[in-house]
Amino acid sequence: MIRPWKLIHSKKIADHRIFRIFSDLKISPRTGRKHDFFVLHAPDWVNVIPITPDNQIVMVEQYRHGSNTVELEIPGGVMDPHETDPLATGLRELREETGYEGRNAQVIGKIHSNPAILNNTTHTLLVEDCELKHSVSLDQGEDLITRLVSMDDIPDLIAKGQIGHSLVVVAFYHYQLWKQGLSQNTD
Amino acid sequence: MIRPWKLIHSKKIADHRIFRIFSDLKISPRTGRKHDFFVLHAPDWVNVIPITPDNQIVMVEQYRHGSNTVELEIPGGVMDPHETDPLATGLRELREETGYEGRNAQVIGKIHSNPAILNNTTHTLLVEDCELKHSVSLDQGEDLITRLVSMDDIPDLIAKGQIGHSLVVVAFYHYQLWKQGLSQNTD
Repeated sequence: MIRPWKLIHSKKIADHRIFRIFSDLKISPRTGRKHDFFVLHAPDWVNVIPITPDNQIVMVEQYRHGSNTVELEIPGGVMDPHETDPLATGLRELREETGYEGRNAQVIGKIHSNPAILNNTTHTLLVEDCELKHSVSLDQGEDLITRLVSMDDIPDLIAKGQIGHSLVVVAFYHYQLWKQGLSQNTD
Repeated sequence: MIRPWKLIHSKKIADHRIFRIFSDLKISPRTGRKHDFFVLHAPDWVNVIPITPDNQIVMVEQYRHGSNTVELEIPGGVMDPHETDPLATGLRELREETGYEGRNAQVIGKIHSNPAILNNTTHTLLVEDCELKHSVSLDQGEDLITRLVSMDDIPDLIAKGQIGHSLVVVAFYHYQLWKQGLSQNTD
């Protein structure tokens, strides 16, 4: 059986706004030897699949600073310190980034954002009957444009690399599971 | 149209073995204002879907230091500096982590690991007709166990959160596309 490693010591070595970096000294349950590992601590993230009454997805085109590319994504963002429910974050980001609002908002999946290096979870939120209600309200450093994309085109856009964000692909996998009645228990 | 931001200055501020952290000063094409962003630079990663002749997936159970959880994953790892082809990395990781070898190895997809904060790509490799050939050869700090899992059980394991690594879910999405003849052009 694979067992977790015991933490001996954890030290914050940097704080970079969107993540804090810790150096964790751990002991292997298999060898008894100590190793240190770098772990990024970040608040949870929320991605939203917003569907319009005619089965279009409200997507956003956005420049990404990590990959240095313009990406076709779904709305989403970081849970604010006062937000305890991914639903609140998702609905806020949907409104701020696209001006859309909808109904039947529900969390349909969650995933470790990257369990090798990150400690946080990404939640997938589904919002139905979305309609444009407001003007957008972008964060400093955010540039984005709303695009309506047919749900039927999503697999092809992923196949062609036009949707290229790992966590957006995960959100569409969660949506598939939800459609098949295999939705995660996300309480 | 969304345009990339122009880079003014890039400074390496830390080197943490598995990633290097850069502070990039960029100028917004929309506002003309300067912002700085933290970007993690990492070599590309490769994940492998190894299939046995009876349609089982060769998976690995592994403790992950970021999430502090034991995860059910597929074999994979980081491209070594001398490796220029994801195929070589994937076949090496498959052999080292599981002792399996197979045939018809092919890259069936690629994705930005996380375009918001990381500069690298994760490649998905498919290897068919996999058979146990060798004993495993683990890196220091790696503990893992091989598990054979039926392909039919994968959606349910993802739905239940028993497969919880975002990039592993992406690999199975790539496999779905490949089965549907929608495989990415990954040259």
